[in-house]
Amino acid sequence: MPDLVKFSKTMSDLERSVALLARGTEEIIKQEDLEARLQLDRPLRIKVGFDPTAPDLHLGHTVLINKMRQFQDLGHEVTFLIGDFTGLIGDPTGKNVTRKPMTTEEVKANAETYATQVFKILDEEKTRIRFNSEWLHALGSEGMIRLAARYTVARMLERDDFEKRYRSGQPIAVHEFLYPLAQGYDSVALEADVEMGGTDQKFNLLVGRHLQQQYGQPPQIVMTVPLLEGTDGVQKMSKSLGNYIGIVEPPDEMFGKLMSISDELMWRYFDLLSFRSNEDLAALRQSVADGRNPRDVKFLLCEEIISRFHGARAAEQAQETFIARFREGAMPEDMPEKTLDTDGEGIGIAAALSGCGLTSSNSEAFRMIQQGGVRIDGEKVSDRGLVLPAGFSGILQVGKRKFCKADVR
Amino acid sequence: MPDLVKFSKTMSDLERSVALLARGTEEIIKQEDLEARLQLDRPLRIKVGFDPTAPDLHLGHTVLINKMRQFQDLGHEVTFLIGDFTGLIGDPTGKNVTRKPMTTEEVKANAETYATQVFKILDEEKTRIRFNSEWLHALGSEGMIRLAARYTVARMLERDDFEKRYRSGQPIAVHEFLYPLAQGYDSVALEADVEMGGTDQKFNLLVGRHLQQQYGQPPQIVMTVPLLEGTDGVQKMSKSLGNYIGIVEPPDEMFGKLMSISDELMWRYFDLLSFRSNEDLAALRQSVADGRNPRDVKFLLCEEIISRFHGARAAEQAQETFIARFREGAMPEDMPEKTLDTDGEGIGIAAALSGCGLTSSNSEAFRMIQQGGVRIDGEKVSDRGLVLPAGFSGILQVGKRKFCKADVR
Repeated sequence: MPDLVKFSKTMSDLERSVALLARGTEEIIKQEDLEARLQLDRPLRIKVGFDPTAPDLHLGHTVLINKMRQFQDLGHEVTFLIGDFTGLIGDPTGKNVTRKPMTTEEVKANAETYATQVFKILDEEKTRIRFNSEWLHALGSEGMIRLAARYTVARMLERDDFEKRYRSGQPIAVHEFLYPLAQGYDSVALEADVEMGGTDQKFNLLVGRHLQQQYGQPPQIVMTVPLLEGTDGVQKMSKSLGNYIGIVEPPDEMFGKLMSISDELMWRYFDLLSFRSNEDLAALRQSVADGRNPRDVKFLLCEEIISRFHGARAAEQAQETFIARFREGAMPEDMPEKTLDTDGEGIGIAAALSGCGLTSSNSEAFRMIQQGGVRIDGEKVSDRGLVLPAGFSGILQVGKRKFCKADVR
Repeated sequence: MPDLVKFSKTMSDLERSVALLARGTEEIIKQEDLEARLQLDRPLRIKVGFDPTAPDLHLGHTVLINKMRQFQDLGHEVTFLIGDFTGLIGDPTGKNVTRKPMTTEEVKANAETYATQVFKILDEEKTRIRFNSEWLHALGSEGMIRLAARYTVARMLERDDFEKRYRSGQPIAVHEFLYPLAQGYDSVALEADVEMGGTDQKFNLLVGRHLQQQYGQPPQIVMTVPLLEGTDGVQKMSKSLGNYIGIVEPPDEMFGKLMSISDELMWRYFDLLSFRSNEDLAALRQSVADGRNPRDVKFLLCEEIISRFHGARAAEQAQETFIARFREGAMPEDMPEKTLDTDGEGIGIAAALSGCGLTSSNSEAFRMIQQGGVRIDGEKVSDRGLVLPAGFSGILQVGKRKFCKADVR
C-alpha cells in the first residue's frame, strides 16, 4: 500500500491533477467520471496490462508508463499487470510455432527483465506487479463460459479488426473472442478504477468497463494514450522503422537522436515524456515564443530523459560531448598527417593507430576499438583484425577529438 | 464391455445391418464411412447425448433410443451421455431464472429417472452412462481457450439459428459458441465412431466431426433421425401440442392413441418405432396391399410398443379392452334409466352415481371420479363437488361399461 499523499480537495488542486493526467491522452471515458473518482477519499486502483513477451522498451512504450508514474505521484495505487495467462497458453491454433506456451519460469524471468526497465520510471515501492493467470486459471472452464455469457457476438464483431476480417472472409478463431473477455475480467478481479492503454486497446478497455457493470462494479475510467511519433515525426516510433530511441541506448546516442527531432515534435515529446508540470511547459513555450533558442529548451528535454535512464551525471556528460562535437564540427579542418610505410604489405588497424600517435599502444588501440571509439573516415571500426592495405588513404579517429590523416604505402 | 456378437463379414450381412441402421434416418454422413467402420474387427463406440433435464419421454424421444438399441443388438458399445456440464452451469446470463445451476445430486437423480425410462428400450448391461462434466470440467479455462481455437466465428455463424439471429439483430452471447464446441469435444473424449441426434442437432454433430479431425482422430459418422410426427400425422410429436404418446401412459390410453393414427402414419411409426426387421415390415406392407385389414397390422404395432413399456400381458389386455369397447360401440343402445327426485334442489354427483346404482357408496363414487373413471354424456368429470341441478337429463357412466340415463327433478 503506497503512502497516501493527502489530497487537498479544493477545485484548483483537482483541476490541476485532471489537467496533468489528461495531458497528451487521446481519450478519457469519461472525464467527468475521472474527476468524480479523484475526489473519493482513497487512492484509486490504476490498472495497466502488459504482454509477457518483455520487449526492449523504447520511449514510445514509456508514454503509458509515464502516466502510471503521474498517478503514483498523485498517491494512487498502480498495478503493473502481466498478461501471462495467454502466454502460458501459447498459440492454441498451433499455427504459429514461434508462440509456443511459455513456462511459468520464463514468464517470471521476462517479468523481471520488464521490471528492471519500468522501475527506471515507476516508483518500485508503490507498484504492484500482478499476473492475470492467478484469477483466469481459477475461473475454470465453467467460469470461462459464464464470462463469455456476458458479451454478445455482435458487439465483439464491432471491433475494427474483427469486423474487417469477418467482412473480408479472413478467419477469426472463436478463442479470439475470449481474449478481450479475459482481459476485461482482469478489471473485475482488480476492481480497477482506471485502466490505461494505447489507442489500439480501446475496445478491450471498454470490454472491461462493460464486464465490471455486469459484475456489479462501477465501470472503470478508460484512458487511452496515443502512439508516440518516432524521431522522424511522421511514423509511429518502432524498432523496425529505425526511428526509435531505446531506453537502454547509450546517453550520447539518446542525446543525438533527441536533438535531431523537429522543434514541433519536441513539444509533443515534452507533453508525453516529461514529468514537468503543465505550468512549466507553458512557461517554456512562452520563453521560445519570446525568442529563446529552441535548442536550449531541447537540452532540457534531453537532460530529463537521459537522467531518467542513465542518471544526472551521464546526462550532463552527454550534453558536454554534444556541445564539444557541435562546436568542433564533425571533423577538424587542421589535423596531423602521417605516411605509414609497410613495403606494400599493409598494416593492422591497431598498429596504424599507434603509428599515427592516436593511441599509446596496440592494446590501448584494441580497447578503443572494442569501446566503439575508433572511426575511419567517420565510419566506426568494429573489427580489430582490420588491415589497411598499401594505397589506403583516409582519416583515422580515436574518441571525439583525436584525428590523423594516414597514407599507407 | 458388451458381449461381442460375432459379425459375419459377408456382404449380405453387412448390407442388412446398414439397411436396418439407415431405416428412418434423415441423413448419414457418410454412409460409405459407416459401412467401412462396421467392417472393423471391434465394436463401434456409439455416442448419443441427452439433456440433464430428464423429461417424461414420449415415443418421439424413443426414435433415437431405438437406434441405439439397434446398434446394441448388432454388438456395438453404446454411450448414453448426460450433458450435465451445461446443467451444472445453469443459465450463465442469469436472465432465465428457471435455469438455475443444478447440483451434482440433482443431475444424478435426473440421470436415474432418465435411466429407468430408457432401460425399457436399451440393454442396461450393454449401456455406458457417462457425464460430460468429467472431461469438460478438467479442461480448465486454458483448455476451453484451446478448444475455442479449433473453430472459426464464420463457421459458427453458419448455423441456421445463429445466422438468423445475427442477421435480424437478436443478441447471441459469446458462450453460445462454446456449447457446440464443448459438445463436439465430447466426441473427442469418447473417441466416438458414430454420433446420433435429431436433425436439429446436425450442426453440433458436425462440430464433433471437425474437432475429432483437429485432435487427430478419424471423424465420427453422423446419423440424424427425424422428429417423429404426433398422432395427428402433421405436427411433430410434442407434449404441448397434445399429440403425443408418453411412454408411461397407461396401456389402454396408448392403445387408443395408437389405433387413432392414420394407416399411412402407421408405416412411419413402424419404421421408426418397431424393432421388426426390414424384411418383416416389407412382408406386412405386402399383406395389406394384398387385402389384409390395416387395423390388424396396427394391432401388431400396438402390441409391440405396449409390450415394450408395460409387458406382453398388459398389451394383450389393452387389446381385449379395445376390441370389447369397439364391439360395444361408444355407448350401449339399451341402458337403465333412473329419475332422481330432489325436490328441485339438485344432487351431488356422488349421490347421483350411487342413486343410479353405478357405485355402491359415495366414497366409491369419489374414488372413481379421482381415477378419471366417471363421465357425463361422455365428458370426463373431475370436480367431485359437481351438483346436477333439477332439470338435468343425461347419461352417467362409470368405468368402461356401466351406464345409466338419469333425470334429476
